[in-house]
Amino acid sequence: MLLHTATSTLVFLSICVISTNAGNPCCSYPCQNGGVCMPHSNSQYTCDCTGTEFYGQNCETPTLLQRFKLLLRPTPETLHTWLVHNKWLWDIVNSMTFVKDFIMKMVVLIRSNIVDAPPTYTSDHEYITLDAATNLSYFTRALPPVPRECPTPMGVVGPKILPDPKLVAEKLFRRTEFKRDALDSSVLLTFFAQHFTHMFFKTDMKKGPGFTWGGHGVDGSSVYGPDKHTENLLRSFTDGKLKSQMINGEEWPPYVSDAPVKMLYPPSVPKDKQFALGHEFFGLLPGLLAYGAIWLREHNRVCEILKTEHPHWDDEQLFQTTKLIIIGETIKIVIEDYVQHLSNYHFKLFFKPELMFGQSFQYSNRISVEFNHLYHWHPLMPDNFNISGTDYKLRNFMFNTEIPVKHGMRQLVESFSSQHAGKVTFRNHGAGTMHVAVDTIKHGRELRFQSFNQYRKRFRLKPYSSFQELTGETEIAAELESLYEDIEAVEFYVGVIVERHREQSMFGGGMIEIGGPFSVKGLMANPICSPKYWKPSTFGGDVGFNIIKTASLKKLFCKNIDGDCPLVSLKVPQTVSEAQANEKCDSQCSKNEL
Amino acid sequence: MLLHTATSTLVFLSICVISTNAGNPCCSYPCQNGGVCMPHSNSQYTCDCTGTEFYGQNCETPTLLQRFKLLLRPTPETLHTWLVHNKWLWDIVNSMTFVKDFIMKMVVLIRSNIVDAPPTYTSDHEYITLDAATNLSYFTRALPPVPRECPTPMGVVGPKILPDPKLVAEKLFRRTEFKRDALDSSVLLTFFAQHFTHMFFKTDMKKGPGFTWGGHGVDGSSVYGPDKHTENLLRSFTDGKLKSQMINGEEWPPYVSDAPVKMLYPPSVPKDKQFALGHEFFGLLPGLLAYGAIWLREHNRVCEILKTEHPHWDDEQLFQTTKLIIIGETIKIVIEDYVQHLSNYHFKLFFKPELMFGQSFQYSNRISVEFNHLYHWHPLMPDNFNISGTDYKLRNFMFNTEIPVKHGMRQLVESFSSQHAGKVTFRNHGAGTMHVAVDTIKHGRELRFQSFNQYRKRFRLKPYSSFQELTGETEIAAELESLYEDIEAVEFYVGVIVERHREQSMFGGGMIEIGGPFSVKGLMANPICSPKYWKPSTFGGDVGFNIIKTASLKKLFCKNIDGDCPLVSLKVPQTVSEAQANEKCDSQCSKNEL
Repeated sequence: MLLHTATSTLVFLSICVISTNAGNPCCSYPCQNGGVCMPHSNSQYTCDCTGTEFYGQNCETPTLLQRFKLLLRPTPETLHTWLVHNKWLWDIVNSMTFVKDFIMKMVVLIRSNIVDAPPTYTSDHEYITLDAATNLSYFTRALPPVPRECPTPMGVVGPKILPDPKLVAEKLFRRTEFKRDALDSSVLLTFFAQHFTHMFFKTDMKKGPGFTWGGHGVDGSSVYGPDKHTENLLRSFTDGKLKSQMINGEEWPPYVSDAPVKMLYPPSVPKDKQFALGHEFFGLLPGLLAYGAIWLREHNRVCEILKTEHPHWDDEQLFQTTKLIIIGETIKIVIEDYVQHLSNYHFKLFFKPELMFGQSFQYSNRISVEFNHLYHWHPLMPDNFNISGTDYKLRNFMFNTEIPVKHGMRQLVESFSSQHAGKVTFRNHGAGTMHVAVDTIKHGRELRFQSFNQYRKRFRLKPYSSFQELTGETEIAAELESLYEDIEAVEFYVGVIVERHREQSMFGGGMIEIGGPFSVKGLMANPICSPKYWKPSTFGGDVGFNIIKTASLKKLFCKNIDGDCPLVSLKVPQTVSEAQANEKCDSQCSKNEL
Repeated sequence: MLLHTATSTLVFLSICVISTNAGNPCCSYPCQNGGVCMPHSNSQYTCDCTGTEFYGQNCETPTLLQRFKLLLRPTPETLHTWLVHNKWLWDIVNSMTFVKDFIMKMVVLIRSNIVDAPPTYTSDHEYITLDAATNLSYFTRALPPVPRECPTPMGVVGPKILPDPKLVAEKLFRRTEFKRDALDSSVLLTFFAQHFTHMFFKTDMKKGPGFTWGGHGVDGSSVYGPDKHTENLLRSFTDGKLKSQMINGEEWPPYVSDAPVKMLYPPSVPKDKQFALGHEFFGLLPGLLAYGAIWLREHNRVCEILKTEHPHWDDEQLFQTTKLIIIGETIKIVIEDYVQHLSNYHFKLFFKPELMFGQSFQYSNRISVEFNHLYHWHPLMPDNFNISGTDYKLRNFMFNTEIPVKHGMRQLVESFSSQHAGKVTFRNHGAGTMHVAVDTIKHGRELRFQSFNQYRKRFRLKPYSSFQELTGETEIAAELESLYEDIEAVEFYVGVIVERHREQSMFGGGMIEIGGPFSVKGLMANPICSPKYWKPSTFGGDVGFNIIKTASLKKLFCKNIDGDCPLVSLKVPQTVSEAQANEKCDSQCSKNEL
């Protein structure tokens, strides 16, 4: 659907009024370009265009300045194409500090400006409330919920009753055969995504799917726990270090017997094999445990460096300052290794908080529930995990705390780096994660998410006009049409997953353009990036500051594994891929399958 | 003490090292202009001058740009003099939108830039921690605590043991005779200050004087309670209104029997006379109750206006939107009536959030414990309260919930407007508030506040070089010297109270220049001032938006009292003052004294 003109919307609107016995005229979302719809009692409405740089009854007419901007601004699709082509040009750009600084600044500013800060909406109200800004137990919302009184779940279009979520998942999501990610992403990336995002995606299901018990950003809670009590249980209170234990000559997290924090293990895992980590959920998979353990090692390693630099510091100062450094390293690695890989851009992203100083930029962040939903990248998960030649089925991998210890960190990271992650697309959810997809759809409905096309418009993308345009093929498009009737009625999570991928990309445009702003904002709005924090003294002087400034995923593992540096890669190296191909052996043929 | 030069500081430092057996060299605060001192183990230190626009060993040398800025920037004292003189010039300025917009923008930007956002320090650490930014149960700190290991409570200067807080209060604070405020502030101002600031000064003494249970800003909690549970108890759930009751034909808050919220009444107040308000403490004084009641009436009045405008709105939308309007009215009135009066500037302050759009300005606020301390304006309180000719002693005024009902809102506001508030200065704490002053000094020590002169420097004021310069007289100066020995050792709260007042001002320079930034930041950083909130649709359309834009203290009372508009004034009108003088009768001579 193209942007409505004032006239066509009014026609559309009058139909709406007739068909719903004078219901809420805003159910048809007549206001364009971020205008806020205010229904009147007489089935008329007003659009509040304040601050949108558009005017007219439906905020459809750009101001002169905005018209000029629109003329100059390349489409997101064009920008993407530029960024994944012409490597030679980007190599030059990447070598010119002034130019790359300018581009990076623009990337952060443009992306983060799309995110409302302070946040405006929650899942409980269709209008702005003070609670949205002040009540931290809410996930925020990029778009308010569809009003309850609307004729259909998506407003005025699509079926009155949406198709059974299980049916949707079966038809669109269930993996038929394992599809590899097109960028050769490795399972190390899968677990990176999972361990990193669980720091801030913490749905508080006791309150409901619109609530969170998390800290709304990169707060180190996966390492230090969600609160001071847990943090204190995990601390050794000596030299700033966290509790740990040596097993087979390697440093691992303590068991819950030594650090009695709340962890979610099934009864089948004996107490004396339950590792204690900052996140209650990190015993679930050896990949999460590996990341948990490597950050623990890094924390204790940094403590030693600071202790050498500041022998007079007490445990508290060593701990607090190391924690700040760990947050800094996390952001640096997320931007320069993880997001860089996800983007596949030739432009080399970099972490330089100074670029935002003096800009109109809010150093505060709130996690939106839409960001949480779109980050459900379960198709990344393969069905089996091959660790140094041993194939583990998912069910044998889960809550298996013996695997990390048995294989050791080196074998884990090398194996994860060598195994292909799945492609985030339709029909690629493994059997073990199908229930998560079903729940995500259910929650999206309970939270009355607006349609995928509404979200595309919210994030400055052209809404799709047909199912074929959305999926880029015909089979899934036909399934979608049978399920949703109208392209305007496709649900949010379904949309981001089934969307056709961009050229040389892991995702469709929706995933990138909706997820990107949340991601960039969340990383750069961290307090440590603000002018009063981002200076050597905050991190124990140049020594600590440089640990952040030179951090990388490779270093994180190499500095914390004895001996030579292992293979650490978010992309399966071509040599490994080729070797695997030569073996002509897929994961099913392993002799050691468990 | 003037800014140290590098050399003199080093000399000073070496003395410090000798006298304290190689203690923490940062105890002498060698780093100037906001530089952060990092002690080394060998009794040396480094100043981190990052972001200060100064360099050199002690960040004492301005950069060329900063030197230029310093040359152009008038001193705060000069600025003040300009602002309280030349009324004819300011009358012209006030009539020129472009000029007054520019000045107002500069006022907000310059003031709020002095406040660290995100916040950096808490009372628990002398260095930056992540907790300072993320743990909302802390009051923040503008300056970190004095390190525990320092030779004296103020670092290296002053007595090793500070004088008994009771002695300090007796010598410097106890009221000998009631001193009127020089600007003729009324008791209506006293209660305005008290009712407004209790919205965000909520020390959590269970945790300690460095902690708060408040929401860190103008959140309406005095009207709606500190949490959702209390809010729900206060709501009627009909037409968005709060529960209320009619007594003598006037609307008052409900009793706790009807709205069972937590209130702090002594057992002597019967349950059926305990008014239920948003703040547990607002039963304390009829002045607080009057403000509580008038905001309650305003809330219910606005609900009716919105209901007329939007007959289809449910209770929830009426309530939430009215709450946003009430916050907006509060900020408008605080800036244009209250702060305007406090400042005594000829420049007419005004509330225009648009001025901050696109600026480098953080829409987030954190209450600092120093702001809390300096706002202990108990000298404003007279010893007796004259309500329509009846004189109430403070002890008979406290927790007396019959007074408001008996006299009615009209008599209350007219009486408050007609009675002089006390002058915020030395020896003007009434007997009933002396214990608060003593506690404030005690808490300042427990929190290891730096000295008043350190705070002056932090807020770009010249530190005082002598006791006489601080007080502007000799008697209190001599008392101070006997108590503190060194001008550098005068405590924060003592300093702001005993400081000589500026010309035509209610306060000394410290109070204004330290309090001002916190105040301006807190008001303008409110979420409702941010671009996505500040538009008609947020407030129910133009009708609601205009309620905010035209709000005033006078209107607040007049719209909510039947009949003619009573006298509503933060300044005792000259006619009233003269009439009182003619009666030649002080408060002691009332016939009706209780």
